[in-house]
Amino acid sequence: MIIINLDLIKEISRPSPTKIVLLVIDGLGGLPNPKTGKTELETADTPNLDQLATKGICGLIDLVSPGITPGSAPGHLALFGYDPLSFNIGRGVLEAMGIDFDLESGDVAARGNFCTVNEAGQVIDRRAGRISTEKCTELCQLLDGLMIEGVKLFVCPVREHRFIIVFRGEGLASEVSDSDPQQIGVAPRAITALNPQADTMAAIATQFIAQAKTLLAEHYPANMVLLRGFSQRPHLPTMGEVNKLKPAVIASYPMYRGLAKLVGMQVLETGASIEEEFKTLKQNYTDYDFFFLHIKGTDSAGEDGDFDRKVRIIQEVDNALPGLTSLEPDVIVVTGDHSTPALLKGHSWHPVPILLYSKWCRPDRVGEFSESACIFGGLGRFPATQIMPLAMANALKLNKFGA
Amino acid sequence: MIIINLDLIKEISRPSPTKIVLLVIDGLGGLPNPKTGKTELETADTPNLDQLATKGICGLIDLVSPGITPGSAPGHLALFGYDPLSFNIGRGVLEAMGIDFDLESGDVAARGNFCTVNEAGQVIDRRAGRISTEKCTELCQLLDGLMIEGVKLFVCPVREHRFIIVFRGEGLASEVSDSDPQQIGVAPRAITALNPQADTMAAIATQFIAQAKTLLAEHYPANMVLLRGFSQRPHLPTMGEVNKLKPAVIASYPMYRGLAKLVGMQVLETGASIEEEFKTLKQNYTDYDFFFLHIKGTDSAGEDGDFDRKVRIIQEVDNALPGLTSLEPDVIVVTGDHSTPALLKGHSWHPVPILLYSKWCRPDRVGEFSESACIFGGLGRFPATQIMPLAMANALKLNKFGA
Repeated sequence: MIIINLDLIKEISRPSPTKIVLLVIDGLGGLPNPKTGKTELETADTPNLDQLATKGICGLIDLVSPGITPGSAPGHLALFGYDPLSFNIGRGVLEAMGIDFDLESGDVAARGNFCTVNEAGQVIDRRAGRISTEKCTELCQLLDGLMIEGVKLFVCPVREHRFIIVFRGEGLASEVSDSDPQQIGVAPRAITALNPQADTMAAIATQFIAQAKTLLAEHYPANMVLLRGFSQRPHLPTMGEVNKLKPAVIASYPMYRGLAKLVGMQVLETGASIEEEFKTLKQNYTDYDFFFLHIKGTDSAGEDGDFDRKVRIIQEVDNALPGLTSLEPDVIVVTGDHSTPALLKGHSWHPVPILLYSKWCRPDRVGEFSESACIFGGLGRFPATQIMPLAMANALKLNKFGA
Repeated sequence: MIIINLDLIKEISRPSPTKIVLLVIDGLGGLPNPKTGKTELETADTPNLDQLATKGICGLIDLVSPGITPGSAPGHLALFGYDPLSFNIGRGVLEAMGIDFDLESGDVAARGNFCTVNEAGQVIDRRAGRISTEKCTELCQLLDGLMIEGVKLFVCPVREHRFIIVFRGEGLASEVSDSDPQQIGVAPRAITALNPQADTMAAIATQFIAQAKTLLAEHYPANMVLLRGFSQRPHLPTMGEVNKLKPAVIASYPMYRGLAKLVGMQVLETGASIEEEFKTLKQNYTDYDFFFLHIKGTDSAGEDGDFDRKVRIIQEVDNALPGLTSLEPDVIVVTGDHSTPALLKGHSWHPVPILLYSKWCRPDRVGEFSESACIFGGLGRFPATQIMPLAMANALKLNKFGA
């Protein structure tokens, strides 16, 4: 992986009135449908994206490095210009930030699932039948506010069966194992310290799980909890510090807002549909100079193995695109945080198509936004951490380096 | 940026009679003319370069990294195989070396401009109406040879309003700010130390400026000086040490000769025209095994926003090319140190076309030397620091690595 020198960008970046929009179509990259030989993006009818590809410059990005399948956090960190191998963000921290939980330095956060266990204590549903968010909220109130050995616990609902737990106290470390076994038919795993500094954390989490089991006993199917992704808030330089930008995020799903907040983006209130997200962009357009607009549906469709739905959502994005281009941002970047081929029903390692349009880009001969066309793009195949310097350059926000 | 391991090259390089010519067309890369959709290089009629591209292998280089606009020094260091982020060369050092000033270890050099200030002390012309080199020489004699607190000052003319100043004495450090405000309508800036070790340097430079103001008072429009780029000669391993080459530079502009000397190249006396530079190559061809031939006019035309002049100069280079190819060097590399699109009137971040010809290159299908054709070249898009190892390999000057 090529490490982008954030200090270098910090040294040469300058504030300016130009605007950058980064449109992230989650899980954009795909694999060809065996019947047609075309990927989801290639199957979709996308006249607006194709036009932008014609006017712009295209390529393929690796989020972490070739062959590595990125999680959402490393994928997005790379898109924001941060080396995902240097900055590791735990799931607990991400989920906590996504619900606007104000994590303090030293807090340890974990992602929780309400789940169903049978009488033998084996997990039989990792999501407790996807209970409603209302039910989740009610159960979180049961668990919230416990004190264990001087450590205060915050338990807050996220959505459906998902919650976060935050441990606040002295001397906590996050290096403990997950209790979530990530499979059914087995008991939740014991939480163990991965180093001696985390002994206290493991003990307290273990006590919490015991108490939760008792408190939830009568709440079948949500009669147990699974915890994973214990983590502490890392220190990342903000995009304001590095790029001298005033950045904002438009995302309907908490985790992406959380990640964006971690690099200093302002969260904009938005409706969840693609149309509403683009409307939010228009409404806030004058107040920021960088927008991260996140589309979730493509990834969900890919994860569900629903090729056709992914195609339809890509088309929806294309339909909405004039709402973005009509604002005439100085730089438009369209890409994804990883591939999610419907054929694989999950994230994959395949590089992701990218297009960059600006008045100052040097257009290539690519006339369509697709995996196979982007191979021949002028940006070549490159690490996603280079997107931000490229976008900054095209927005004329970087000074020359050296004499 | 991928760091090229100079120690590795040093370990495997071997002297041999084969010859390499690196032809640098300064600011070569461009942007399409909106009327034609073609860049300067694409517009130029270049049958000889196209023929070389057909026989050779092409690609696109990033001098620093994608999105970063290189100054001339980082651009050339990368071409010579040195990581430009590791080796930072100050402007003062470059200019000093370019006029053959023999910098000693510990000397601090700065670039100076004669400028015009009004009665309020504000800069009204940063270049004093571009006084003649003769006038500059006369004024430098006024200032040269001063002693301030035991530090000896050398003030030497460069060209037109440009001069260099070298401070020689004990305990000088170069970490001081510029006095050149880089704009008009304001007073020159005070020179301040950026760390405590540079206090002496700041004090002496400040005294010099005060004395210069007095000495120049009657010399309107050149009635003041601006200093910038205080720096000391860095230690770089020479191309002789790293590559076991006997290298020479042919360049009409001082700074490029200075940079070449810093990596151990022999400066060849040359006329300034393209034709004369190629003639110098021919005359000295038997005496060296590496030639860096620098063409300045393309960059100047680009900086002036003169698309057509840049096209004409590229054509001039193409016309002169048989003078190079007829010498039958083992390896010919043609590229630039950065892009200077006439549309941007300055250096830019766009990658630069490169062609490499040798008997042992593996030719690709590129049949024309242009930005858009080089996208499809066999060299791909790669960091410029890899050019020297590639050229060395193609000249059969590198041993196998490892057993």
